[in-house]
Amino acid sequence: MVLPFVYTQQDFITDVCRSGDKLATPLTAFDSAMRAGWTDRMEKGLFRYHLRGLETRILPGFQDVHVMIFVGFGFLMTFLKRYSFGGVGFNFLIAAFGLQWALLMQGWFHHLGDDGKITINVYGMINADFCVAGCLIAYGALLGKVSPVQLMVLTLFGVTLFAVEEYIILNLIKAKDAGGSMVIHTFGAYYGLAISWMLYRPNLDQSSRLQRSVYHSDVFAMIGTLFLWMFWPSFNSAITEHGDGQHRAAINTYLSLASTVLTTVAVSSVFQKHGKLDMVHIQNSTLAGGVAVGTAAEFMLMPYGSLIVGFCCGILSTLGYVYITPFLEKHMKIQDTCGIHNLHAMPGVIGGIVGAITAAAATESVYGAKGIHLFDFPPAKQGGHQAGALCVALCFGIGGGILVGAILRLPIWGDPADDNCFDDEPYWEVPEEDEESVPPVLQYNNHMRNKDVAESNFTMESDTRPRA
Amino acid sequence: MVLPFVYTQQDFITDVCRSGDKLATPLTAFDSAMRAGWTDRMEKGLFRYHLRGLETRILPGFQDVHVMIFVGFGFLMTFLKRYSFGGVGFNFLIAAFGLQWALLMQGWFHHLGDDGKITINVYGMINADFCVAGCLIAYGALLGKVSPVQLMVLTLFGVTLFAVEEYIILNLIKAKDAGGSMVIHTFGAYYGLAISWMLYRPNLDQSSRLQRSVYHSDVFAMIGTLFLWMFWPSFNSAITEHGDGQHRAAINTYLSLASTVLTTVAVSSVFQKHGKLDMVHIQNSTLAGGVAVGTAAEFMLMPYGSLIVGFCCGILSTLGYVYITPFLEKHMKIQDTCGIHNLHAMPGVIGGIVGAITAAAATESVYGAKGIHLFDFPPAKQGGHQAGALCVALCFGIGGGILVGAILRLPIWGDPADDNCFDDEPYWEVPEEDEESVPPVLQYNNHMRNKDVAESNFTMESDTRPRA
Amino acid sequence: MVLPFVYTQQDFITDVCRSGDKLATPLTAFDSAMRAGWTDRMEKGLFRYHLRGLETRILPGFQDVHVMIFVGFGFLMTFLKRYSFGGVGFNFLIAAFGLQWALLMQGWFHHLGDDGKITINVYGMINADFCVAGCLIAYGALLGKVSPVQLMVLTLFGVTLFAVEEYIILNLIKAKDAGGSMVIHTFGAYYGLAISWMLYRPNLDQSSRLQRSVYHSDVFAMIGTLFLWMFWPSFNSAITEHGDGQHRAAINTYLSLASTVLTTVAVSSVFQKHGKLDMVHIQNSTLAGGVAVGTAAEFMLMPYGSLIVGFCCGILSTLGYVYITPFLEKHMKIQDTCGIHNLHAMPGVIGGIVGAITAAAATESVYGAKGIHLFDFPPAKQGGHQAGALCVALCFGIGGGILVGAILRLPIWGDPADDNCFDDEPYWEVPEEDEESVPPVLQYNNHMRNKDVAESNFTMESDTRPRA
Repeated sequence: MVLPFVYTQQDFITDVCRSGDKLATPLTAFDSAMRAGWTDRMEKGLFRYHLRGLETRILPGFQDVHVMIFVGFGFLMTFLKRYSFGGVGFNFLIAAFGLQWALLMQGWFHHLGDDGKITINVYGMINADFCVAGCLIAYGALLGKVSPVQLMVLTLFGVTLFAVEEYIILNLIKAKDAGGSMVIHTFGAYYGLAISWMLYRPNLDQSSRLQRSVYHSDVFAMIGTLFLWMFWPSFNSAITEHGDGQHRAAINTYLSLASTVLTTVAVSSVFQKHGKLDMVHIQNSTLAGGVAVGTAAEFMLMPYGSLIVGFCCGILSTLGYVYITPFLEKHMKIQDTCGIHNLHAMPGVIGGIVGAITAAAATESVYGAKGIHLFDFPPAKQGGHQAGALCVALCFGIGGGILVGAILRLPIWGDPADDNCFDDEPYWEVPEEDEESVPPVLQYNNHMRNKDVAESNFTMESDTRPRA
Repeated sequence: MVLPFVYTQQDFITDVCRSGDKLATPLTAFDSAMRAGWTDRMEKGLFRYHLRGLETRILPGFQDVHVMIFVGFGFLMTFLKRYSFGGVGFNFLIAAFGLQWALLMQGWFHHLGDDGKITINVYGMINADFCVAGCLIAYGALLGKVSPVQLMVLTLFGVTLFAVEEYIILNLIKAKDAGGSMVIHTFGAYYGLAISWMLYRPNLDQSSRLQRSVYHSDVFAMIGTLFLWMFWPSFNSAITEHGDGQHRAAINTYLSLASTVLTTVAVSSVFQKHGKLDMVHIQNSTLAGGVAVGTAAEFMLMPYGSLIVGFCCGILSTLGYVYITPFLEKHMKIQDTCGIHNLHAMPGVIGGIVGAITAAAATESVYGAKGIHLFDFPPAKQGGHQAGALCVALCFGIGGGILVGAILRLPIWGDPADDNCFDDEPYWEVPEEDEESVPPVLQYNNHMRNKDVAESNFTMESDTRPRA
Repeated sequence: MVLPFVYTQQDFITDVCRSGDKLATPLTAFDSAMRAGWTDRMEKGLFRYHLRGLETRILPGFQDVHVMIFVGFGFLMTFLKRYSFGGVGFNFLIAAFGLQWALLMQGWFHHLGDDGKITINVYGMINADFCVAGCLIAYGALLGKVSPVQLMVLTLFGVTLFAVEEYIILNLIKAKDAGGSMVIHTFGAYYGLAISWMLYRPNLDQSSRLQRSVYHSDVFAMIGTLFLWMFWPSFNSAITEHGDGQHRAAINTYLSLASTVLTTVAVSSVFQKHGKLDMVHIQNSTLAGGVAVGTAAEFMLMPYGSLIVGFCCGILSTLGYVYITPFLEKHMKIQDTCGIHNLHAMPGVIGGIVGAITAAAATESVYGAKGIHLFDFPPAKQGGHQAGALCVALCFGIGGGILVGAILRLPIWGDPADDNCFDDEPYWEVPEEDEESVPPVLQYNNHMRNKDVAESNFTMESDTRPRA
């Protein structure tokens, strides 16, 4: 996913030695001295760690993305009443597993040195997080209905598919997708939805008592929402190497997300009975704007363009929760626990389309003589390539999901029974609550014949003990 | 633990240019080449995004401030038993709304280009967060007693007042207020307190059953406290562009906050019955030191000065919770849900006074011949300007609050009834707890031969109320 | 609010080389001018704040470490059912106290200027956090069994011992320990375990009803786990100043942690009855890999080396929770609430050993002619010094712990009774839960004339259900 890069003197100065590999570009001054220093460093000092990215200005961006993957996605999935352990815990497991596998897969595709060694640097680490994000999105559709072993299989195939798909889109088709609207969100969401379709459970309503939140699980989920929301500008700009593009990506994402919040709240209030807000919408739809500017964020989308995209996606995503998710479950046999269709699939596709239009509309007067080289092709052609990339992402998502779904249907993976979904009990040691109430029962029964008030007082005192 | 370090020319070059905009300064080498590159970039490449701020050194500071606004303030307000959704959710809403409005307002006052276009950069984004902070502080006084529509109105006017007030204080009076003791905290707190005074509810005790925390809501609030506490040094130093001043601001804030924690714990323990600690104090008063060094943080307050300020503010703020908040409610008709008078109002005023004294005491021997140019005026005059700025902040806060409070008293905003305050129920779909108790009901009825329905009904209703 | 900015040559120099101490090294260009400027700055502009570290590249690293100390450690200790206030609150208290004391102690040992003044910079602040980390680890063993006053005493002595131990290890023995496997983790863990041994409570089972988690307290603890896990690469690389070493440290830690997660989950599942995962393991053992590469992270441990270390530590740490912690409690009279023996003590010792071996195996062909100067001695000798440093850390930990434990046994510190451990009640105003249950009591008593046992049973059973 390292984007092609036109290196100018100005960039050199901006970046000054940001990354050693730029030194391959002729520099007007210091050139030989720097090369000498760098060469020395590359050959002797580094051996196997390739450091071009892992440095000051990149590392904070990496940490932001890392927080989104582990805290953001993890806590966003704690909203279920009795599946918070599984939400945050399995997220942790498959992210840690997936990023190791992704380092290998991405390494083979992108970072393989002449000596057959994979170079590990912070770009690779960010890309690994991006890979993993696709699988975590897919997990959102399956939350509570699959076993951890199934999740490992899903991640193993998902990361592999992602690496191939990304290679095709970025390196062969040469589309741009800095924030991954197509590569990450569209692929991940349709991958998860297709698997969910393959694993359709007609009797899932037997677990419906657990497919809901409690008060504090919704507050936990807000931790995830807020960390995703706050750091999304870093996500969309993390791997846009070109200085200006990175700044644009952060600002566009920031604006789009801000406007999404407002329309989400408005639509949630209007379409809910009694005008009340629904936490599901606030937790999820407020993020749709970040997904939808993923591709176009580094382009000259302009602030008002970002606001419009965010505005529309907030509406669409919230309406999706109200109308489309029930429709999908009832008529399409797609059970989508977290509503990733509304948060990732639709906004991802919109993001791809917005990206194609914005790229097709690029002119040199807007981007500048140098900025236009952000694209590999003339605008109209680039727009076509962007549209093609979107189709590739959709095909990989749906096709891969059907394939992996078929594998996951094998009766060997230990998935939970229909009446046992959305429950941590099968996979976790769940702490018992309030064992203290057990002794009182016994005592109570013993004494109830001539019950005394003192005892019932005692019972109530035991009641006044905090339950949570 | 500082490791030995071989400094090479290449390292020098790595570190050299870090910040492009400083290249306006004559450099003995590279100068013309770099200038050329930069100018080109400004005119062609940027168009509308102005990037001088959105760069390495600023962006992490921006992210820290962003975390404070959304996670810090948001979770700090989740402490109420049944208003956690409103605390974190409405905080999210008005912050996202406010920062868009602030970008416009601040843009008109500060960032308007010759072509009539507002430049958006990371300074603007940090300033927008600062604007919003003032409104969120005001929300603290009103938490649980206003409708989301009222909050939008409060934010709309609050951001506007803030922009004018800030323009007067920083650009006309030319006072310094890097961390916003006056501009943000004093203004925001008195704005909120004045609104609360206008919206006084004599029968608020009808909701007193809900104006309390439960065990886990207090733990949620600690998330907010800790993120505010940890990132406050970034808040106070975020827009102090001058290198030394920024470093001083961070160190002074860090020290002041550390000493505040100790006095808060000590005072809380001494003034509480049985020597127990009160979570309200730990959640709030531990932050008072950060407010109180907001103005003086970038000055030569000195580490011991910071420690003393933090020490005193910890005492004052905690005593405020014990004595002043009840007094204000009883005798002044100011109902201050979060106690912002103790956390923002008093420390903010102290911060303004400390800033005025520190500025008035500045000497060239301490600041250096160049450092003294931090101030626009000779020390004594600067001190007077600082004091004047504090008065302006107070006037805008109180006056604006009364004005906006009068508007919010109109009976059109859908505010909750007196017995419905501090409750998410009117504005949120609140998940029911423990539906499992329904099957037992049936069993219960079986055995109820001499039961009475009223009682069992009542019991069950009390069961359906969320417990945590 | 953008402050006026006087850009001077000194500022340029500040930004040029970002870290003043590097100026001691001869530079081929600008050298004399920069030195001149710097000298000027040191004497006039700075006075007492020494800024060499507090700069762009360091500050984000500092913030990450800060988050680990306050949110990471704090929330990791909220897992107990009724000791979440104490976990996060006392962690806050002793961290804020400890870092002030550490600034003084470290200042006297490391940062004392010729004028007798302590210079405060970001290295000192990071080191203060490191100091505090040792004490917080020790607190883990004692969680729920000591009073806040005891914790202050523990911290006072702990920071002092740490400063001496660190001075011996880093400055006298000249061992390397960037991530503190020995200096922080081994010392801190054995310090805490020795104190716990001295404070052994034979009747602690009287509090066993409270020495457990509830559902949501385990989710809170995951906040701590994840922030520790994500930012551990920053912890291990924060003070490795040399560019390459810092990059290696971050990458090695990242890889080690990722592999630890997988083995922890696998072992937890295998050794738990019914193959279920235990939250205690997920919360703690997943971090063992970060501890164990603390010393060797900046060396050429190589990615596969890091993965192996993480792999082994995940197994060892999880087995420690299953077998060793009960053994220690039963046979060694060491009650270790958080299991720091598994998370810090054993992995810390392994980290020291791995560091000694890696250092002893260093060759110029791997590190490069310059990189090898990372070490002060030839490899074999360095390895010996590393081993010696591990012994020093162990001796300081155990010896200091016995000493401080003896002091803490004095009956003057207000520690909780045996049946009152793991309870916030003695030290905190704990909010009462469910006051609504009070009215039912009255009613209940009124109707009890015809009460039936089934009903009361039902009531109690509904009580045993989780409330949150």
